[in-house]
Amino acid sequence: MTQLENAKKRIVTVEMKQVAESEQMSVSLLLKDIAKGYTVITKSKGHSCKPLGIGRNLYIKINANIGTSNFCSNAQKELEKLNAAVKYGADTVMDLSTGGDIDAVRKLILKHAKVPVGTVPIYQAITQCPDAEKLSETDFLNSIENHIKDGVDFITVHCGIRKEHISLLKTRIMGVVSRGGSFLVKWMLTHNKENPLFTHYDEILSMAKEDDVVLSLGDGLRPGCLADATDKAQIAELKTLGELARRAYKKGVQVMIEGPGHVPLQQIEKNIKLQKKYCRGAPFYVLGPLVTDIAPGYDHIVGAIGGALAAYYGADFLCYLTPTEHLGLPDTEHVIDGVIASKIAAHAADIARGKPRARIADDDMSHARSNLDWDGMYKLAMNPEKAKLLREKDLHNTESVCSMCGDFCSAKINKETRKKY
Amino acid sequence: MTQLENAKKRIVTVEMKQVAESEQMSVSLLLKDIAKGYTVITKSKGHSCKPLGIGRNLYIKINANIGTSNFCSNAQKELEKLNAAVKYGADTVMDLSTGGDIDAVRKLILKHAKVPVGTVPIYQAITQCPDAEKLSETDFLNSIENHIKDGVDFITVHCGIRKEHISLLKTRIMGVVSRGGSFLVKWMLTHNKENPLFTHYDEILSMAKEDDVVLSLGDGLRPGCLADATDKAQIAELKTLGELARRAYKKGVQVMIEGPGHVPLQQIEKNIKLQKKYCRGAPFYVLGPLVTDIAPGYDHIVGAIGGALAAYYGADFLCYLTPTEHLGLPDTEHVIDGVIASKIAAHAADIARGKPRARIADDDMSHARSNLDWDGMYKLAMNPEKAKLLREKDLHNTESVCSMCGDFCSAKINKETRKKY
Repeated sequence: MTQLENAKKRIVTVEMKQVAESEQMSVSLLLKDIAKGYTVITKSKGHSCKPLGIGRNLYIKINANIGTSNFCSNAQKELEKLNAAVKYGADTVMDLSTGGDIDAVRKLILKHAKVPVGTVPIYQAITQCPDAEKLSETDFLNSIENHIKDGVDFITVHCGIRKEHISLLKTRIMGVVSRGGSFLVKWMLTHNKENPLFTHYDEILSMAKEDDVVLSLGDGLRPGCLADATDKAQIAELKTLGELARRAYKKGVQVMIEGPGHVPLQQIEKNIKLQKKYCRGAPFYVLGPLVTDIAPGYDHIVGAIGGALAAYYGADFLCYLTPTEHLGLPDTEHVIDGVIASKIAAHAADIARGKPRARIADDDMSHARSNLDWDGMYKLAMNPEKAKLLREKDLHNTESVCSMCGDFCSAKINKETRKKY
Repeated sequence: MTQLENAKKRIVTVEMKQVAESEQMSVSLLLKDIAKGYTVITKSKGHSCKPLGIGRNLYIKINANIGTSNFCSNAQKELEKLNAAVKYGADTVMDLSTGGDIDAVRKLILKHAKVPVGTVPIYQAITQCPDAEKLSETDFLNSIENHIKDGVDFITVHCGIRKEHISLLKTRIMGVVSRGGSFLVKWMLTHNKENPLFTHYDEILSMAKEDDVVLSLGDGLRPGCLADATDKAQIAELKTLGELARRAYKKGVQVMIEGPGHVPLQQIEKNIKLQKKYCRGAPFYVLGPLVTDIAPGYDHIVGAIGGALAAYYGADFLCYLTPTEHLGLPDTEHVIDGVIASKIAAHAADIARGKPRARIADDDMSHARSNLDWDGMYKLAMNPEKAKLLREKDLHNTESVCSMCGDFCSAKINKETRKKY
């Protein structure tokens, strides 16, 4: 039985206990949220990792995308990215490999990942048969089956793009920016057929159910620029995803919904509300959102602004962006920048949503700052090494202050004056 | 006459015309906003720079802090930071020097800056006489006079901290984190006297009026951590700033109000509303706000999240933060990171507030992306050099795609399929 089926029958599983403990919440509330489809636990029966809760009443989670492309396909580099991502706080990683020995990389990541691992099976199908005319419906399903067999914990499946949505794309500047989405549109147009991931959805559900793999219903029609945000194509697909979520729910399969993308700041709240409405509170997994299009090289910052707001309004799971988004495959340093930017967004939203443990580290940091306790500050910093490096570029650890204010340090002055308040 | 006095008399100045033109707005609306104290034009009569409007109905502006400390006091480095800040979009710079030959650095910055320059005169007074017992009330005023004489366009003066506010600080974790604020508290306690910048406020107004220097009423009691945000001390000072703003308005002196600081995301809207209420719509100049305390090394990102939201809710002017905030003096690379992060926040808010020209570059970028026009993308990027560098780390400009998706590029697929939509 899946976590959802257990929850519906009010059976508390080992995984629920583990998640409730790490979230410091009552297992009965967690069970209720899972039973209603508001929360999922990601952990395949085929993967030995820590089960992770994503959804209502939980801390915001973040995902780091890693994986090869046909220009950069070094498996060891991907392992290095995995380790860096997890070290700095990624709750999950997705292996989006499209180059080199894709199967080998996936197995390697799965072997080493102590966190849940996600993939997008269609990427491999496309990579191995880039000609849309030649890929059969069975090929799509086989790629899903292979990934599930390997123990992947969650998979993105672009089941919500319908043939009837394609005409809605005419007015867009960017068309379809999802890789899976753009290929499926090409396939549908070439074969003049409905999306095979939609027509074979019941088979996909059966496959996912076996190992309790969470389906991440992909937004193949997500907006790729501000101009395309919240348009008819995006909303039509979102409504379809809502229907598919209901079908999964009935079958006992856990699902979450993927979301945009590029969205201007003032539309973020509305986007979250629409998702929660059409998908009856299913967990929302957003990519960004990006609040401007003109900052390539800094899209981790652009995404952190959108992500903080999205999570504050109710998104549950943030996919990071790295500084190389729109430009190239990230190196390990970019993965770290992406993870921390996303972590900042998630943490800021946890604080804003009043999560009980969220502010503890901040208050501890403030005490350390007030005491000019630099070792304490480093320890509490999201990236201790970087904090230390930046401080020590101009001075050594022997000074009590920093090179910004030097001797005219307010914390130093406070120490003298506070007793006189 | 100051811009405010002119506006009150419905006289359109050369500076108003220049600002209206660069904002692409009617000069009559600008004049109305200045006459009401909603908008200021920063430009000292003693400085040959482009006049800059800050306030209602205008694009969000950003400031970059530069300047020496007693650990790093190389004037040429500061000039390099000035040029980098302006190149990447800083609308103003503040020279906060506290080390080396402070007068010489300020004169150098003023000579080269084509944008308005701000300073905090009290920093120099403290630096030259760090013993609070020895600094006289006249010393404070002299430092202000010297900076104004040199042609500084706006000055931060911490006139709003009252002696009676000190007892409100008892409950704080961080006490006073403003350098000027912490010194003034020390001075008041040492001398058992009211804040000299408050008692001599009329003299300060007269000095500022002469060259039409904008007073930036400093928030010496701004919260230095989330735990201290929106507390009694902060609000008491804000109310005093509101009274001081009214006194300045009556005298025809232009003012803006400085704001926090560290503020959890859910309190940002309230902070903006309180400022606009207590200060009757005077321009709001915020530092950040920072939405978490635990990301030293990444505070430019933390501040961009808070800044985007603050500007969306009505803040007018964002002070950047660099990656070295809380750790040390920024180098030029950190200045660039800070400017771009702040620019992203300002731009995202301009878009969200529906500023007419804000989205043009984004839409142009989206067309360039859709066409895989890399030179076009670089040109539109906030940092063209960095975008190019990140893309070319894995490939050369000869390829049409990037190393993220490689040959499986959605834009490439779109080009084939779009005609069939």
